[in-house]
This record gives sequence, structure tokens and C-alpha cells, in this order.
Amino acid sequence: MTAPVPADVISRLKAVLGEGGWSQDPDRLAPKLVEWRDRWSGTTPLLALPRSVGDVAAVIGVCASSQVAITPQGGNTGLVGGQIPQGEILLSLERLRAIRAVDTEDDVLVAEAGVTLAAVHEAALQVRRRFPLSLASEGSATIGGLVSTNAGGVAVLRYGTMRQLVLGLEVVLPNGEVWGGLKRLRKDNTGYDLKQLFIGAEGTLGVVTAAALKLFPELASRAVAIAGVATPRDAVALLGEAKAITGGAVESFELICRLGMELAVRHIPGARKPLERAPPWYVLIEIASNEAGAAEAAMERLLEAGMDSGRVLDAALAQTESQARAFWALRENQSAAQKSEGAAWKHDIAVPVSRIADFLETAGTELTARYPGVRIDAFGHVGDGNIHYDVLGSPDADPAVHNGRRDEAAHLVHEIVMSFDGSISAEHGLGTMKTAEALAYKSPVEAAVQRAIRAALDPARIMNPRVLF
Amino acid sequence: MTAPVPADVISRLKAVLGEGGWSQDPDRLAPKLVEWRDRWSGTTPLLALPRSVGDVAAVIGVCASSQVAITPQGGNTGLVGGQIPQGEILLSLERLRAIRAVDTEDDVLVAEAGVTLAAVHEAALQVRRRFPLSLASEGSATIGGLVSTNAGGVAVLRYGTMRQLVLGLEVVLPNGEVWGGLKRLRKDNTGYDLKQLFIGAEGTLGVVTAAALKLFPELASRAVAIAGVATPRDAVALLGEAKAITGGAVESFELICRLGMELAVRHIPGARKPLERAPPWYVLIEIASNEAGAAEAAMERLLEAGMDSGRVLDAALAQTESQARAFWALRENQSAAQKSEGAAWKHDIAVPVSRIADFLETAGTELTARYPGVRIDAFGHVGDGNIHYDVLGSPDADPAVHNGRRDEAAHLVHEIVMSFDGSISAEHGLGTMKTAEALAYKSPVEAAVQRAIRAALDPARIMNPRVLF
Repeated sequence: MTAPVPADVISRLKAVLGEGGWSQDPDRLAPKLVEWRDRWSGTTPLLALPRSVGDVAAVIGVCASSQVAITPQGGNTGLVGGQIPQGEILLSLERLRAIRAVDTEDDVLVAEAGVTLAAVHEAALQVRRRFPLSLASEGSATIGGLVSTNAGGVAVLRYGTMRQLVLGLEVVLPNGEVWGGLKRLRKDNTGYDLKQLFIGAEGTLGVVTAAALKLFPELASRAVAIAGVATPRDAVALLGEAKAITGGAVESFELICRLGMELAVRHIPGARKPLERAPPWYVLIEIASNEAGAAEAAMERLLEAGMDSGRVLDAALAQTESQARAFWALRENQSAAQKSEGAAWKHDIAVPVSRIADFLETAGTELTARYPGVRIDAFGHVGDGNIHYDVLGSPDADPAVHNGRRDEAAHLVHEIVMSFDGSISAEHGLGTMKTAEALAYKSPVEAAVQRAIRAALDPARIMNPRVLF
Repeated sequence: MTAPVPADVISRLKAVLGEGGWSQDPDRLAPKLVEWRDRWSGTTPLLALPRSVGDVAAVIGVCASSQVAITPQGGNTGLVGGQIPQGEILLSLERLRAIRAVDTEDDVLVAEAGVTLAAVHEAALQVRRRFPLSLASEGSATIGGLVSTNAGGVAVLRYGTMRQLVLGLEVVLPNGEVWGGLKRLRKDNTGYDLKQLFIGAEGTLGVVTAAALKLFPELASRAVAIAGVATPRDAVALLGEAKAITGGAVESFELICRLGMELAVRHIPGARKPLERAPPWYVLIEIASNEAGAAEAAMERLLEAGMDSGRVLDAALAQTESQARAFWALRENQSAAQKSEGAAWKHDIAVPVSRIADFLETAGTELTARYPGVRIDAFGHVGDGNIHYDVLGSPDADPAVHNGRRDEAAHLVHEIVMSFDGSISAEHGLGTMKTAEALAYKSPVEAAVQRAIRAALDPARIMNPRVLF
């Protein structure tokens, strides 16, 4: 818990923000102080609601001069607690929601921090372009948060994470100065690439107020299929075939275990099982191409090759757009479908693609040995090695008991992840939830560099102080 | 010029490097002390020739404890003087040339700093993969230097610069400690992405000793064409059509002015003019696809569309692999072809793609007005906004006079570049040549952040001290 903010600082913040530029109304604050799954809740003496970059700079300037801490918040969709204040000034970017520019020659869109991902998608489509970052919370998640957490999602295999999709940034630094780095250049080698430092820094090095994002051409054909495979090893091998056959045109290659699919079919209204006989594992594959018909043709070649090699046990190709959406709903509702099954231990891990199968085997063996009756619900992005490795209690388990073992189980899972040279946070970031654990896995050399950089930019550690190292 | 290195430090360095691990032989040193165009030459009291990461760490450890400066050097192909020592210890990475791993499931190749780009290409092809970074000096340029300068080249439009192609790094820090960041993960959000800080840092934050590089699928079809266009604006519009028609499968889209093509045809042995009637501007287009025949089909559609819209005045499609190589030779020999024409002012600039035409128009007008008789030889990468904007003297000009105006002319060109929100170093870096000028264009805020980061990692400023800020 952060030290109380002096009353005179609150007064100065109110003064620089002006009438309507802040709130202390509990009803206005409430939704911003609770994480959407109710895992974290917090407090703040003041919600700052800046209307401009200048307002943000003024707020941070006041806080810097008084060494008062700030928690920045975007769409409040984070899963690791990083956006929930514990006594800090809460800085919401919700009012910075202009799309400042869309340019089809530069293939760039400049959005302020508070613009939702869905709004960016829409603005791109209006000029016949695409912004390819895609994730389930796109209606709420905002650009500032997506940049600050280096968001990933389901199209990383082809387009990379947010880190690869940003051309420039505007950032208010921890001293209240504005770094105007909103460039539109594809090549620029004139010193350290500062934007890369702010991307994924979870608000600890400054507040992202706007981003110049890369746009991509619309694609003319798209094919979505669900295939059944016997093992994760077959899924990885099939991904290899898919990359070879399409020359890199695989948009998504998602894995879902049998339990995950069963739960989706059982709990998601309107969901239907995609294959007649349930295989041990499902892969959802999306291929896109600019040639009309080419995506469908490549998908058919892939599924045929998979049938021939015996890797594909069964497959269903979406025949209509609505069927494609229905297939995707099975994947996107994996977390939602779990909810009715009680408490879950959740792990957002990554391993090298070549180690996915080993990881799943080892983790499954060790968890079921140590915690008899648990049900493993693994799904995720094979192409990125990113598995959402969730573990449900047995149907008759006491949720409180299951929850009580969460940290101990996470430690076990993460030990296995690290033994395969993996990451304990593939795409969600560290927030307050995983900071200490991640630090334990960093080498002293790396921890020292991380801390030196932070101290260089924020010596008083006022930016999101409980997050990162 | 750096202060003389104390004799006891030289002795300690010799001791840690061991027999054969260093040289003071003038003949051995000579090729490493001169830049290949003879623009820079330097001196060093000792050439360190480490055989391992441990050796590199030992050298830097000795230098750190004595605050003695180091200039790291890769293949010595840099164009901005950053690799030429002026009294510093010269640290060559030439002996670190193992390819430590090639993995087709992870699609990763781990190469040590001294491996040439050509050797990486070859190792990738042996497992039916491709490493797409491509530039003229690939036979000499090495991975350490390519990472440290964030190299670009002719396929950035599709694959990005080195920054997008690195999964992990191993770096010896300015204090002599080794940062082991050779990960193979496609997603990893556990703190600041340190590798991004070392990429493009020109050796000022440490010495890159190995890199994990992304591999890509081989592509089945490739089409290369040269088209004539009337103006750079038409070239940019044609690029837009190419991106739309191919859905992002444009590998390269290069611009060459009429003079550049004339010089190539005149001076390069075996070169032939690609089009019957010389247009004002040429574009060299390469499209690649995994579908057999698809690249050729897309190229034909593009050229037809360009003819229909009047943007393409004339075009030649390479019918054979050797014809494609001949087309590329016209582009790759642009610098070589200039040599017989005397001195040239060279500028490696970038502007947003939408401003390329404006930049060329403004710069051409102002330069020819101020320096009557100069001949502008512009060529480069339209898709990245990166123009190599070279200016030759008139055929009868005194080279010494032309050279004497180089800095003044560069200032003029760079002022125009900055008025279009561009970069004065698109892909060559700053080295010693452009550091001061780049600093003048940085905001005080940005300069302060750049310096704070450097001071945090290298407080005694021993790493390549004359380079960057």
C-alpha cells in the first residue's frame, strides 16, 4: 500500500485538471477499482481524467515534484493487477480517444491512448486496410494499455505482437516532460529506439498517450477449419506443414484440448461440437490470402496432407462466414466456458514451439500426480508457443481449497516452464501478480539492467511503483 | 582521440586473451583500421581477437576496471565510421563464428557475432528455410554488426529490419558481465525487452556476441520486373497498387533514377539497359509467393493495372533466374557504378512514404539552384521511404571542390528531410559521422533520455565512446 497522498497535492492536481477533469465520486470510481474477474480491488484518493496530453503532463509534473505515485489505466482489461491502484493517483486515459490520422500511403493510423482496439479495427476497415492485432477484449481494451503490455492475441504468428506493429509513440515521461516520438518511418537508425522501451513497460517508464500503428492490406480470401489431432506433437508438426504449404500465410493456429472443447459446447449458448467424434486435441486454423480462393485451396491441401500423414484424424472446414465465426467462438469462449466449472488455476505461459509437447506432457504428469482429480484445460497459440494452461478442480472439489493451492501450483507449473527455457508471462505481463515470481527467475545481471534503466528514467519510482522490478 | 591506454592494461589484456588471442602486428591490423571507401582510418594500441564469449567478457572486464575505451568491430562494412578506433582497444568478433543451432520447429538459427550474413543464408537454405535480411555486403557483414546497427536492406518492406528478426541475444555488458538473453520465444512479457535496447545501439551499450534469428518458409514462386515511371509520385502510387494486389507479398520495391541506371549500364561489366526507351525513373519490383506461379501472375496483374492507369510507361519481366539476377545487379551496383564518376555526396535518408515525392522535388530544386551542375543520383527503397540520395559533381568539376562542399550540402539535404518528418540515417546508423548532426535534431527531452540510458549501463562511457550521444 502506497503512502497517503498529501492534501495539497490533491488540491494542485484538481487545479491543473480543472472542473470535471477529476473525480472522487465513489460510483464513478468503483468500476475502475475492481478487476473484471474480481481478483483485485483497490483504492485511490483521486481519479484523474485528463482531456489532453498537456493534462497528462501536468498531472505527472505535479506528482513528480511531490514524489507521489501514479497508476495509469486503460480499458481495465488487464489480468495481472497492474492497472488497479493501491492508494496511488489513478490516471485514466479514457478521454484521450481521438484517432488523429489515418493515411493509406504511409499505411499508418495514429490513435490516442483511450481509443479501443475495436475502434482502430473499424477506422482501418473504412479505408480498406487492416490492423491485425486481435484479441477477445477488443471492445474494451485501449491502445495505451495494449502498447504498454505489448499485447499479443491470435494473429501473432503472422504479424507479431504490438511491438512489431508500432511505428511511433507519444509518451509523458516520469518527470512530466512529453517525448514526441510519433514517427511514421519504417527505417530510422538515429540512436536507441526509445519506443521499444516503452512498449511492454506496463506504465513504469511513462504514460503512452498516442501511438502510430502500422496498417496492412485487406486480404481477399480466408479459410477457417477445425481439425482433430491425437497429440500436441502432431499439432506442432501440422503447423510446420501449414507454414510450408502457405509460405507464412497462416494467420492463426490455435490448440484446444478435449476438455476445453467439451466445456465450450456445454456452457456457451448456441455452441455446437465441431467434429462428430471428439479427438484428444483440436486445432483451429485460419489461413488468409489476397488471391481469391487461394486460402481455401491452401487449407484443403493442408488438411489433405494431414489426413495422408495420419496427423489429422478428422476435420471440418467452415463453409460460411457464420460458421467461421462459430468456430472462432469455440476458441474465444474458452475462459468464459470454464467459469461454470468453478475455480481455475490459470497460467499464461510460453515455451519454444519445439517444446510445447514436452511441456504439456511433463506438466500434466506432475500436476495430476500431486493434485489427484484436477482437470487440465490447456488451449492457446501453437505458433507462438503460448499456452493458456488452466487447471480446474475436480467437479466435487471445494473451490476454496482449490484456490488455496493456486500459488503453489503456479510455482510448480512455472518451474516446468523455465526448465524448457520458457516464459511465465507470454502475453499478459507481470503486473502486481507475477512481478516477484518473475524476478526470482531473472538472472542477477538482467535484474540489475532492468532496475538501472528504470532508475535512470524514474529515480523516485512514481510510475506504477508496485509493478515490475 | 582517446587517451593513451596504460601499458599495464595492455599487459593484462594480453594475459586474459592468451597466446594468439591478440595482435599488434601492423599488417594484421591494417585492414581493420581503414574503412573500405577510405573515408576513415584509425589507430589502436591492441587488436583483441577473442575466441569465446568468455574472452570478450574478460577483455571488457579489464577495460571496465581501468576505464579504458573499446571499439567493437564486425565485418568492417559500416559506412559511418563507427567501427574505426581512434586509440581505443579494437575488439574484433571475427573468431566468434559458430552457428550454434538451427531448429526448424522453432524456426530459429543461433549465430555468433562473427558469422557472415551469407553464411546464415546458406545455413538456412540447407534446412529449407530463409533468413530474409538481404543487403549488398552480405559476404562480409557479420551478425554482430548487423544487429548492432539494426541493418535493413532490400526486404524490409515485407520482413522488417533486424529489429523484427531477432528473438534473443547474448551480450557482454559494459561492466564485463554476460547477459544471457538467447531466447527462442515468440511471446514473452516479463519486463523490459532488453534485446531491443542493444539492437541498433552501435556497440555503445555492450557487445553482441550471439543472436537467435527468426527463420521463414522458403517461397515457391518469385517474379522480378523493372518498370519505367514518369515520377516518384507514380512509383509510390504503384507501390500502393502492388500492396493491394499482392496482399503484402511484395518483397522489394526499389526506385532508381535515370542517371543511376545510365551509370550502371555504362560502368558495370555486362550490364544492359532493361527498357528500350529510358524513362525518368525505374522501379525494380520483386514479388514472392508460396503458390507456384502466383508471384508471376500477381506481377502480370500489377503491370497490366499500371499500364492501364498510365503509371507504368514500359516494363520488362525477368523470364529467367539469370535475368532476375541481372535486374538486381543494376540496383545493387548503384554505388559501385558511381565511383568512376568522381566524388559523391551521399545521404542515407528516410521520409514517410507519402512524402518521398515532395522530398525529391524539394531537394532537387534546392540543390541544383545552390550548386549548379551537380547531378542527382537517387535510388532506394520506396516501401520504407528510404532513399539513398547521392549527389555527383558535374563531369568537369574538381573532386576536391565537390568534396569540400559535402558537409554543407548534407546539412541542406538533412534540413529538408527533417522538414518532412524524416530521418537523417535510415539504415546506416550514426557512427562518428552523423552523431553530432543527429543530436542537433533531437529534442532536449529525447537527448536526455538517450543519455540517461547510456549512463545507467555504461557510467564510465567505455563502449564506443565517440559514437551516439
